[in-house]
Amino acid sequence: MQSMSFTDQARAAKNASRRLATASRAAKDAALNAMAEALLADQDAVLAANAADIARAEQAGTPASLIDRLRLTPDRIAGMADGLRQLAGLADPVGDVVRGWTNANGVRVRQVRVPFGVVGIIYEARPNVTADAAGICLKSGNAALLRGSSSALESNRAIIAALRRGVESAGLPADAVQLVEGGREVTAEMMAARGLVDVLIPRGGAGLINAVVEGSKVPVIETGTGNCHLFVDASADHDQALALLLNAKTQRPSVCNALETLLVHADAAPTFLPRALEALADAGVTVHGTPAVVAYSDAVVPATEDEFDAEYLSLDLACAIVPDLDAALDHIRAHSTGHSETIVTADLAAAERFAAEVDAAAVLVNASSRFVDGGEFGFGAEIGISTQKLHARGPMALPEMTSTKYLVTGSGQTRP
Amino acid sequence: MQSMSFTDQARAAKNASRRLATASRAAKDAALNAMAEALLADQDAVLAANAADIARAEQAGTPASLIDRLRLTPDRIAGMADGLRQLAGLADPVGDVVRGWTNANGVRVRQVRVPFGVVGIIYEARPNVTADAAGICLKSGNAALLRGSSSALESNRAIIAALRRGVESAGLPADAVQLVEGGREVTAEMMAARGLVDVLIPRGGAGLINAVVEGSKVPVIETGTGNCHLFVDASADHDQALALLLNAKTQRPSVCNALETLLVHADAAPTFLPRALEALADAGVTVHGTPAVVAYSDAVVPATEDEFDAEYLSLDLACAIVPDLDAALDHIRAHSTGHSETIVTADLAAAERFAAEVDAAAVLVNASSRFVDGGEFGFGAEIGISTQKLHARGPMALPEMTSTKYLVTGSGQTRP
Repeated sequence: MQSMSFTDQARAAKNASRRLATASRAAKDAALNAMAEALLADQDAVLAANAADIARAEQAGTPASLIDRLRLTPDRIAGMADGLRQLAGLADPVGDVVRGWTNANGVRVRQVRVPFGVVGIIYEARPNVTADAAGICLKSGNAALLRGSSSALESNRAIIAALRRGVESAGLPADAVQLVEGGREVTAEMMAARGLVDVLIPRGGAGLINAVVEGSKVPVIETGTGNCHLFVDASADHDQALALLLNAKTQRPSVCNALETLLVHADAAPTFLPRALEALADAGVTVHGTPAVVAYSDAVVPATEDEFDAEYLSLDLACAIVPDLDAALDHIRAHSTGHSETIVTADLAAAERFAAEVDAAAVLVNASSRFVDGGEFGFGAEIGISTQKLHARGPMALPEMTSTKYLVTGSGQTRP
Repeated sequence: MQSMSFTDQARAAKNASRRLATASRAAKDAALNAMAEALLADQDAVLAANAADIARAEQAGTPASLIDRLRLTPDRIAGMADGLRQLAGLADPVGDVVRGWTNANGVRVRQVRVPFGVVGIIYEARPNVTADAAGICLKSGNAALLRGSSSALESNRAIIAALRRGVESAGLPADAVQLVEGGREVTAEMMAARGLVDVLIPRGGAGLINAVVEGSKVPVIETGTGNCHLFVDASADHDQALALLLNAKTQRPSVCNALETLLVHADAAPTFLPRALEALADAGVTVHGTPAVVAYSDAVVPATEDEFDAEYLSLDLACAIVPDLDAALDHIRAHSTGHSETIVTADLAAAERFAAEVDAAAVLVNASSRFVDGGEFGFGAEIGISTQKLHARGPMALPEMTSTKYLVTGSGQTRP
């Protein structure tokens, strides 16, 4: 495969996508189970390849946190195989009739779900994404062109080899799953491949996502950076606010739906902030505050203005006091990345204004932003969380990996 | 307005979009009716402006067909006003709950329709598009940045002045509707305005659409060129096939869902083609055929290979004989623009294969491709026909002019 040009790979993917588009659910589920089995059967080869990637990363002085993301273990491989088997258990979105009607002249119209065709996924270090993305694409009837990180090249080669063998053993074309190798010029080719690649999905840091969104001629689904806010309203129940704050910040700080900024209504601050700052400190969170917040505790680090624009993805939290709901809405409007924004309030009017006026994929009232997730939404699979407004917004599962077409059926009707 | 920079206009549109996003249906409908009234009240000014555009176009030697598209009459203005009033009668997509559920922990999730925000529309000569597009955007809660053709500048200025007065008289912000003036550099600014413009929709010829799709950093909805095919299967009823052929080709040849290529099964050709060629000639259609088609009639002009790739948008038709359904599917796969493709057949298996395997916004069985239209689908309004797979595919009406957001409501639930 390494010797194929990207265009040849994309053509092979397009051909495979035609077979996938009309494959039955049973055929696709058999392939997913065979992919899981092949992955487990190749566990030693995958671990050996991963060890080579890790040795190379260590030699290059890669930070430990990135090496941890890169590392595969028998448990992680078992998790990848489980993920593939779970996909086999999910409903097939392809063929779903979204709506349908009969016109006055007897012409029947049905809008049905169909695969996109060829989906390109550009992602960073974690090699488990390779199996996830391949499985989600296959279940939704799409051929996958997987552009993994060069740091995970050996791991990805070994994983893809197993997955392709699984696909083929179930009678579907191996080219439904392909690894795209090469330098930056290959990413540029993917972004220019209008007509061969139907959709591109970048998964990773803000830099990668921006480069793809700005540079691609192929339609892109932007997955999200999350500079998520929690606003404690004057009327908030403080116990509830504290629980939601700690959960959203500390339950898993490295993910996009984790909390990054706390905004506190001025009326709530004198009683709520001292408790919150103490609890955050106990949980190991460093608070970066405006001068008004610093005044509450020596433990608060002064925040620079641009800290309110960035994701920490760590046990750090920006914090400001706002005079009222309008100021909270203004702050969120100015700094939000449109992912998940939360209000804690007992005031119905405040809850309704916040829900109506905040422009984000998800708006939460008295619930943790950590719930904004395909798994928590009960979708069973998630390819990412879209922060764009076109096509899909929020957690993207199997139906979001499809397009539709209209089937129009008549008995010779013509337009007068 | 002419002295404002594009960025200032886009910021004003963003501000207006916030008001629109929470405007009630009643407020938006009142604005649409007031826009219609203002347009009728300004009829003389609009006609005078249009006369100036037409004089300029005539001096520049513009072809008569383009001048006809540019021309406004009292009837066309009345049609624009009627269109705005009809929009007031349509259901409001904003606030629609697409789906919703309650999780085991009591957290309620609703997915609701919300406006995109700011929609940029880049379009060619017809000034009636100005009122249509403004109305559809306003009804769907979006602010509109309308980039019309320089050939229609005076007409568009007069129309927009009336529409803005109407919007304002109903208590909504005039900046909900803005004309974007200036040279090509302004189009480039629109395409680069990520964060200020939420969606761009190009409407016009293939050149314009390609330039926007390839150059834009803002997400684009591609509206369609339609190189539409009709395949007459071996089993087709010939009377039905003839009626569908003539309707799809001649009922309105200049539009994107009109027929451009006829494919005839070799078994049907000896009996069907002579009748079809005679009927097409009687209807004033010039047939451009492969040598096998030319052999049937002296009236058939030899077709070049690239004629099978282009839209005629006139009383011309490309024609080929294919040995079987597979060859028809191959031809369509090679030449289709993914708009609307038709089979005429009495064979259920052929109908089902065609419906499943043709990759297009609409696939028709024994019905005219002229039905692929927002009006014919009963949508009441149409901003264009999408030929892309992301977001919307096929006729786009009010719901297709919206995004969604998830509202997540709890009573303090945290993620374990």
